Amino acid sequence: MSFCQAQLTRCKPLWDRMLEHRFLRDTRDGTIPDERFAVWMRQDYLFVEAAIPFIAALIPRAPRRHWEPLAGVITALEKELKLFEERAQAVGVDLRGAPPAFANHAYIQFLMATAARASYAEAYTVLYAAEKAYHDSWKVVQAGIARDSKWYPFVENWAGDAFAGYVAYLEGELDALAAEAGEVERTRMAEYFELTTKYEIAFWEMAATGEGWPGT
Amino acid sequence: MSFCQAQLTRCKPLWDRMLEHRFLRDTRDGTIPDERFAVWMRQDYLFVEAAIPFIAALIPRAPRRHWEPLAGVITALEKELKLFEERAQAVGVDLRGAPPAFANHAYIQFLMATAARASYAEAYTVLYAAEKAYHDSWKVVQAGIARDSKWYPFVENWAGDAFAGYVAYLEGELDALAAEAGEVERTRMAEYFELTTKYEIAFWEMAATGEGWPGT
Amino acid sequence: MSFCQAQLTRCKPLWDRMLEHRFLRDTRDGTIPDERFAVWMRQDYLFVEAAIPFIAALIPRAPRRHWEPLAGVITALEKELKLFEERAQAVGVDLRGAPPAFANHAYIQFLMATAARASYAEAYTVLYAAEKAYHDSWKVVQAGIARDSKWYPFVENWAGDAFAGYVAYLEGELDALAAEAGEVERTRMAEYFELTTKYEIAFWEMAATGEGWPGT
Amino acid sequence: MSFCQAQLTRCKPLWDRMLEHRFLRDTRDGTIPDERFAVWMRQDYLFVEAAIPFIAALIPRAPRRHWEPLAGVITALEKELKLFEERAQAVGVDLRGAPPAFANHAYIQFLMATAARASYAEAYTVLYAAEKAYHDSWKVVQAGIARDSKWYPFVENWAGDAFAGYVAYLEGELDALAAEAGEVERTRMAEYFELTTKYEIAFWEMAATGEGWPGT
Repeated sequence: MSFCQAQLTRCKPLWDRMLEHRFLRDTRDGTIPDERFAVWMRQDYLFVEAAIPFIAALIPRAPRRHWEPLAGVITALEKELKLFEERAQAVGVDLRGAPPAFANHAYIQFLMATAARASYAEAYTVLYAAEKAYHDSWKVVQAGIARDSKWYPFVENWAGDAFAGYVAYLEGELDALAAEAGEVERTRMAEYFELTTKYEIAFWEMAATGEGWPGT
Repeated sequence: MSFCQAQLTRCKPLWDRMLEHRFLRDTRDGTIPDERFAVWMRQDYLFVEAAIPFIAALIPRAPRRHWEPLAGVITALEKELKLFEERAQAVGVDLRGAPPAFANHAYIQFLMATAARASYAEAYTVLYAAEKAYHDSWKVVQAGIARDSKWYPFVENWAGDAFAGYVAYLEGELDALAAEAGEVERTRMAEYFELTTKYEIAFWEMAATGEGWPGT
Repeated sequence: MSFCQAQLTRCKPLWDRMLEHRFLRDTRDGTIPDERFAVWMRQDYLFVEAAIPFIAALIPRAPRRHWEPLAGVITALEKELKLFEERAQAVGVDLRGAPPAFANHAYIQFLMATAARASYAEAYTVLYAAEKAYHDSWKVVQAGIARDSKWYPFVENWAGDAFAGYVAYLEGELDALAAEAGEVERTRMAEYFELTTKYEIAFWEMAATGEGWPGT
Repeated sequence: MSFCQAQLTRCKPLWDRMLEHRFLRDTRDGTIPDERFAVWMRQDYLFVEAAIPFIAALIPRAPRRHWEPLAGVITALEKELKLFEERAQAVGVDLRGAPPAFANHAYIQFLMATAARASYAEAYTVLYAAEKAYHDSWKVVQAGIARDSKWYPFVENWAGDAFAGYVAYLEGELDALAAEAGEVERTRMAEYFELTTKYEIAFWEMAATGEGWPGT
């Protein structure tokens, strides 16, 4: 089995917990309150922005063949920010001003710390897991959401074919990196896959509860 | 007013919330259940260990006069680990095996991401804030805990004179860094001070609740 | 006087030595042997390629307003590589296969070490100095080279208006960074300006002599 | 054959060129002019100092078992600096004030860039190669230098048993890292070994010629 398939199989209980999250279910069913969705929008806008320096930090450690694709990811993230801004304007949400919630701040630190400290293959595992998680999560939403929902453009973005192709590309590259890694590094890659899944779940949980920082 | 005093004044509500945390109060009053304290021990052991690469990562960005003191901090952290191991053995707690809780993992990521990405003066702000927080927090415990408490060696370590002197040294150095920084950087330093305080509170909250990862 | 103008004034003897380098003069006068120019092409091709991870490494430390411009520099560098490939093909030079000469390898290490270790304003000083050096150097060549020279496309690239505008933008931004820096950081920025000029001269010297690695 | 032995065998021509360098031969034979040796002292003092942040930068990427040994290397480097200061005072050499020569500056950039960008096993290869080079080089000097030479304390430091033990430890650890690395990484490790040897030769060459920066 390929490395990625092995991780998805091994972490299936966690992955399913993510896909069954009430935030996704309520968005799919059209029962999510607007203010709840707006919390997610504001937080994910900050997260997408923060992903840009994460991708940039990968380039100096990446094999030459990955430089242009990674620069392309930065361009795609800038486009995603525009999508948030367009949606926010269309539905009257103010994107700016909200500070990152704890789980969001933590996830961003995890990205940057990983880029600084982990091996390239380990950091690439985090990139793949995060993008795969988003693709699969929005596929869940896509299965039921009304085509005329005001949130549909998000569904289109992450559940659509272009994003599916990008995730498939990442999967192929990560499998190749895993194949050329030694056993010790491959074990750490698997840990990073699981960790990323846990941060993804924490992010949905934060979106669903609107929770800020513990104890404050 | 010096930079550090200005931060402690500005963030006093947050700082007080930290110092009044029930984990500290219960430890001071001797009412904390052993298993609750053991949760903290296991998590803080992981945190102290993780502080070593944080300190090491500061050295390449530090002014020459800070290299030996920072190398000394690494030695001090290694000694702190021994203190945990000695206490764990004395009271029959198994330190190993517990994975980092969410707030702990997040705080560690924050340290490493800051070392990688922030300016040196910003990263040094995090170091000062974290050490000052520990000193002040254990001073709270010191004010009431019994001298023969099995947790007293921790009190002695962080509330004692040697640690007080170290924190005073950090404060002097941070004030000097702040004095030579421009206004933009000083504003970011202030944000890092506040952020570190919020991570400290999240850590005590985690210790008090034993909470793992959100949504899992 | 602005920071950049102050550096150009202070380092004028070094800067003039660079602009008067025989490699530039011989290229301007059309007396440079093809094989000598080919040495430069092969080495500078490697250098331009290596500048991509340098720029990427700046992004995580850059203020938000610099992210898109820096991503744009990566795109511009990819285009420069195509220019080298097009010229190499047109004149029958084999770009690949030559390992980096000592001065080239060293300069690349200087870029990456600076991105990792210096403050953002210091690293941005290196970016400005290197781009300004190239613009001014190729202006020297432009003053005399025949319009139908096979090397003219390089002249057009670095001495042209678009690149001039880019260098002017960098100068404005660097002046702004210098204005908001403290005195200590500004002094280090000045040192980085001078160091970059010395690496530039070492690069032209290597191109002119074809020298590889000392003592081997 | 172990990884390290394979590199020493593969790079034997380069390694021999290093060991046969006239700087080592003249120091061994006692024919080196004092001012020539003083050039080396000033430059190597700067290099040893610069190795401290290199070692520190390795710790965040190192496996846990390497943290204390690497912190120990920092302590050993601080002691080496004291040796330089003691010798300089004894023979009336002024260590401070000389800026790093080109080859020295370049080598330092190579260390820091490698720590930032290469994998841990690759960076550890540079550490081993540099320390092994110093041990073997000073063994050459040891074979002939008079015991009462004023430079003998340097010989004792790097050619002695303690340093031999340290180099043997590094060799064992690097062999272990190589054994657990994949083929692609191991190939890059071999390139780093060769590169380090070339920087070592460039350093001796600089010491022997007193050469500053090319073209200035």
